[in-house]
Amino acid sequence: MPRYALLVEYDGRPFAGWQRQADQPSVQGAIEAALARLEPRDHTIAAAGRTDAGVHARGQVAQCDMAKDWDPFRLSEALNHHLKPLPVAIRQAARVDDDWHARFSAVERRYLFRLLMRRAPATLESGQVWRVNHPLDADAMRAGAAHLIGLHDFTTFRSVMCQSKSPVKTLDEITIEQVDGLGGPEIHFRLRARSFLHNQVRSIVGTLERVGSGAWEPDRVRTALEARERSACGPVCPPHGLSLMGVGYPDDPFA
Amino acid sequence: MPRYALLVEYDGRPFAGWQRQADQPSVQGAIEAALARLEPRDHTIAAAGRTDAGVHARGQVAQCDMAKDWDPFRLSEALNHHLKPLPVAIRQAARVDDDWHARFSAVERRYLFRLLMRRAPATLESGQVWRVNHPLDADAMRAGAAHLIGLHDFTTFRSVMCQSKSPVKTLDEITIEQVDGLGGPEIHFRLRARSFLHNQVRSIVGTLERVGSGAWEPDRVRTALEARERSACGPVCPPHGLSLMGVGYPDDPFA
Repeated sequence: MPRYALLVEYDGRPFAGWQRQADQPSVQGAIEAALARLEPRDHTIAAAGRTDAGVHARGQVAQCDMAKDWDPFRLSEALNHHLKPLPVAIRQAARVDDDWHARFSAVERRYLFRLLMRRAPATLESGQVWRVNHPLDADAMRAGAAHLIGLHDFTTFRSVMCQSKSPVKTLDEITIEQVDGLGGPEIHFRLRARSFLHNQVRSIVGTLERVGSGAWEPDRVRTALEARERSACGPVCPPHGLSLMGVGYPDDPFA
Repeated sequence: MPRYALLVEYDGRPFAGWQRQADQPSVQGAIEAALARLEPRDHTIAAAGRTDAGVHARGQVAQCDMAKDWDPFRLSEALNHHLKPLPVAIRQAARVDDDWHARFSAVERRYLFRLLMRRAPATLESGQVWRVNHPLDADAMRAGAAHLIGLHDFTTFRSVMCQSKSPVKTLDEITIEQVDGLGGPEIHFRLRARSFLHNQVRSIVGTLERVGSGAWEPDRVRTALEARERSACGPVCPPHGLSLMGVGYPDDPFA
């Protein structure tokens, strides 16, 4: 059966997350249902990142196996047709080798977290940003974030539900940038790693917000990391500012 | 009664437009209902631009007259409290002179129209952009737009429903810029004028899209303008890429 890689974008709000669930809408379930309209049978797809409820994706990558030899462009068009009116879109489809795997072949995940600094409730950005109604010091957050770069035991920054075998991960990048958004000043946190622990990005951003607000000294991030204790973490921030922006593979299937 | 200027942001999707209507939700009606929670009586507010159904605002300006002498910050906070959960936010309130008028004192309106160039359906930008699935030539659109700058009879580019006394207006600016959006390349059209005719921005953007796609030569925009005939206009584009970004006054009430 020919295997395809799918580059997937979605608005996470109406979904209980990526992963298929018996009685709740999921992105996986939506795409599998669209696949069943093309080739009637049970489909099981896999993705590079199993995003939580309310988390968005711009560049999630999934794989599917088809019986028919589909032209990739026609496959994406047909899926988009059947995904309507759900806010899920196949941005690209590509033929990949049979041993390529969306999750296990991935060597990098990139996330963006958008924080909107303003007093008034969000309207057009609602559900796509975390609104914080006090100013944040980006330099202090950068100083705090610097302690997290590299190979560390991230027990402090992972959910107690995390199923990863080891809490030791290498965080390759945290970039913190202030951007003029249409709704006001935003802070964009960009994180990059081979893989992330469950709730790791939201635990880090929630902690850095405490630093930016002045409640935490930047050095307290190091102390928290070294504690290797969940209770040392700052508050986990809400999901809706988070987007999976892209996934890296040794050979980009969409190039 | 002290008069206040309100700087208003809204997502136009759930509303039949700015203007109050007997049996449909409107932004004006929502704000008037919130005002009635603060001072129970009938309120009638006026705005600088009566946006159509589905059109958004980042910097709409409205005025209200209050019985009590409200601190402007507390007024905006109280209104935002009562506007929940509607996607309408008061970004700022300011005390103004009794003879100041949100509409008649305005000397400039600024609009942004967002067009998303991509094949896949929009998800996170849905309802906030006009998606066009073919490439557009920004230089050709700029050449077409140049014919519209200045004082002209804009009969071609106004709705037959337009109630303005004269079709003669001065268009001060059309800037056309390609921007890297999170969902793909966007074209941002920024238009600025003392005032606009009904559907003027959407008529202009819809016509320029024809130029960008290659269907029209840029010079045809001049021919269409000089025809002074509605039928010479290109297709009117959909409302949901359009936002009223700001309103100019001789003295900025929010400065």
